[in-house]
Amino acid sequence: MDFKIDEQGSVTSTPGFRAAGVAAGFKRSGAPDYALVLSEEPANFAGVFTSCRFAAAPVLLDRKRVLEQPFAQAVSINSGNANACTGETGLRNAERTCELVGAALGLAPELVLVCSTGRIGTQMPMAVLEKGVKLAAAALSPEGGADAARAIMTTDTVPKHAALRLELGGRTVTLGAMTKGAGMIDPRLTTPHATMLCTVTTDAKISNELLQSMLEANAEESFNRITVDGDMSTNDTVLVLANGRSGVELTAGSPESEQFRLALLALMRNLARRMVMDGEGATKFVTVRVEHARSERDARLCAEAVANSLLCKTAWFGGDPNWGRVVAALGYSGAEFVPEKTDIYYDALPVVLRGGDAGTPEPELCTIVGQREFTVRIDLHDGDADYWVWTSDVSYEYVKINADYHT
Amino acid sequence: MDFKIDEQGSVTSTPGFRAAGVAAGFKRSGAPDYALVLSEEPANFAGVFTSCRFAAAPVLLDRKRVLEQPFAQAVSINSGNANACTGETGLRNAERTCELVGAALGLAPELVLVCSTGRIGTQMPMAVLEKGVKLAAAALSPEGGADAARAIMTTDTVPKHAALRLELGGRTVTLGAMTKGAGMIDPRLTTPHATMLCTVTTDAKISNELLQSMLEANAEESFNRITVDGDMSTNDTVLVLANGRSGVELTAGSPESEQFRLALLALMRNLARRMVMDGEGATKFVTVRVEHARSERDARLCAEAVANSLLCKTAWFGGDPNWGRVVAALGYSGAEFVPEKTDIYYDALPVVLRGGDAGTPEPELCTIVGQREFTVRIDLHDGDADYWVWTSDVSYEYVKINADYHT
Repeated sequence: MDFKIDEQGSVTSTPGFRAAGVAAGFKRSGAPDYALVLSEEPANFAGVFTSCRFAAAPVLLDRKRVLEQPFAQAVSINSGNANACTGETGLRNAERTCELVGAALGLAPELVLVCSTGRIGTQMPMAVLEKGVKLAAAALSPEGGADAARAIMTTDTVPKHAALRLELGGRTVTLGAMTKGAGMIDPRLTTPHATMLCTVTTDAKISNELLQSMLEANAEESFNRITVDGDMSTNDTVLVLANGRSGVELTAGSPESEQFRLALLALMRNLARRMVMDGEGATKFVTVRVEHARSERDARLCAEAVANSLLCKTAWFGGDPNWGRVVAALGYSGAEFVPEKTDIYYDALPVVLRGGDAGTPEPELCTIVGQREFTVRIDLHDGDADYWVWTSDVSYEYVKINADYHT
Repeated sequence: MDFKIDEQGSVTSTPGFRAAGVAAGFKRSGAPDYALVLSEEPANFAGVFTSCRFAAAPVLLDRKRVLEQPFAQAVSINSGNANACTGETGLRNAERTCELVGAALGLAPELVLVCSTGRIGTQMPMAVLEKGVKLAAAALSPEGGADAARAIMTTDTVPKHAALRLELGGRTVTLGAMTKGAGMIDPRLTTPHATMLCTVTTDAKISNELLQSMLEANAEESFNRITVDGDMSTNDTVLVLANGRSGVELTAGSPESEQFRLALLALMRNLARRMVMDGEGATKFVTVRVEHARSERDARLCAEAVANSLLCKTAWFGGDPNWGRVVAALGYSGAEFVPEKTDIYYDALPVVLRGGDAGTPEPELCTIVGQREFTVRIDLHDGDADYWVWTSDVSYEYVKINADYHT
């Protein structure tokens, strides 16, 4: 299934949604740092969240809403402060955010979802937030999606938003989305439980339950497959709002429903991929694909060990085909496999065959790992299970960004 | 128990041992790259090795000797080539190394142990090895320990050797040792199964069985507590040779035996600590200590998550007290604990109390993390189990070393 994704599109590509991005003052730089997304009517919704034990206040609040409420209508997103490890005060501030947004937009506070990203452990400057809400509420527009995507950036170098349309039963359904995240990226999004923040809008008519099940399945095949630094955030959140305006009703098990899920997956993968491409200091985009493992767990352990190996990631930065580091990572991954059966390819070139040097001349391998993008394919010849992960390299710039980070 | 460790001492501080370090030609630089350690008589011995599934040929050979043989007498160690992922040819080359050393020293090949470190996946240049064996055999000397320690270095910036003496029953027992390793350091040494390479000599009289049990227990409390980059090697090896010359006989359960084990532990910890101090590009030495966890497993998961977090390690390099990254790492560690009970200290200063900001002024925290050495202490207030890990920061130099590494 091939979907045409419009990377100029955004959360406001979907009919019935408005958005804004403004500079409230969370960031010392004066860059935009507060975004609002509004559905013109109460929308069905779903969410997946970080599995970090120190989940931030907005995560706790949104998770409760996903579990308990039929509808949501607005998403408040600030960068510059994560409202994480902020205790009872942090929770009250997240609730107060809902009240402020509700008052500004004429909504019940319960209809407001909250996302925060930035420094951990500092109480939210509520005066700044209040200013942001007022400015953003006044600026809400059906063309505001790109501004909103810019306002949620932290160490991102480019805003990341997209949309796609699909025909279902003769009618058009739209999906719009935005995401942020370049560091502290190794989401493990769990059942209504990712500092990646992603908001998706759609005009499909769909129950919370079905939307939630699609979101969970799709997160597993998109955001949960990416890693920049192996550090999972306290604030990772993916939210989907569905206002039903297209009139296309999706029911569990229908072909239209499956098509919609695949379209949502394509959009989520597009954004996931762009997060890794824009990973902090990243100069390479590497797909690590493990094939023919005994179990998906073994395949995943192998793929994640290679994708998170500091030695592999620095070698890729150096354009060094050093496959010994790939082999070492497989060896300590904890996966069950037979070293003597293991083949490794860089794109189409064999690097390791049956656990030893494949003899491909090093200059040819250097050409592959010198590219902006390549695949490390590991064939374990030991079963039927596969897994893949998207990852980036680790550069001087990565160290610079993270040795100096103060929001 | 406080032992006085002499960092000028070496494997040849122990009576009855000779050593040499020579330039055989494994390294393009012409630096020393081959070492021999010889016991003048057959010695009891023990070994622990990497748990990497792609264990190198010399690891396979030594592991077999530890399991099957009563004695060993020599250790052959080359840098520049790991003889890992080299298949049957690699195994034959490891065996051939024993024959060459045996012939040069007049020993049965079975009495020779082999260690290799360097590039993975390239067959051992046997002519170079043969030259090394000849040069080293001719250079063996009771003063050769420091030369040997220099010859086994790869990305190490300083040689690491030490010795200590202890009085047991009115007689003096000596322990001498050397180690190498600055990168690919996260040993998980297992039962006669670490690219750290360590050789220890002693003149205690001790059975292989007792020596092995001490070595395994001590590895758990020394080399298995260090990490530089979180990447375990294919070649990690710790060997101990005991020639019995002191006449001090150690038997299981005796107070002397326990004193000897503690002395060996002190020596192993001294070397482990110096490996982290000399970690690739390292500018900081950080102890991560987790206290009052529900179980040792929970304590270990917490300590290792923080010690291996790229975001924590780059923050330390930057002298940034960013405790949000410590909290995030604890949160994704997989350990069971209660966030709201968690306290975190940098040296003696509280950073986090009951899961939130302790309010210590940032300049005070900056002073701590600006030091060459400090401790991150995490008190979970949730049980009786403790664990600690020694780790380093990740600097520009780390990336440089590893983006450019070709032996």
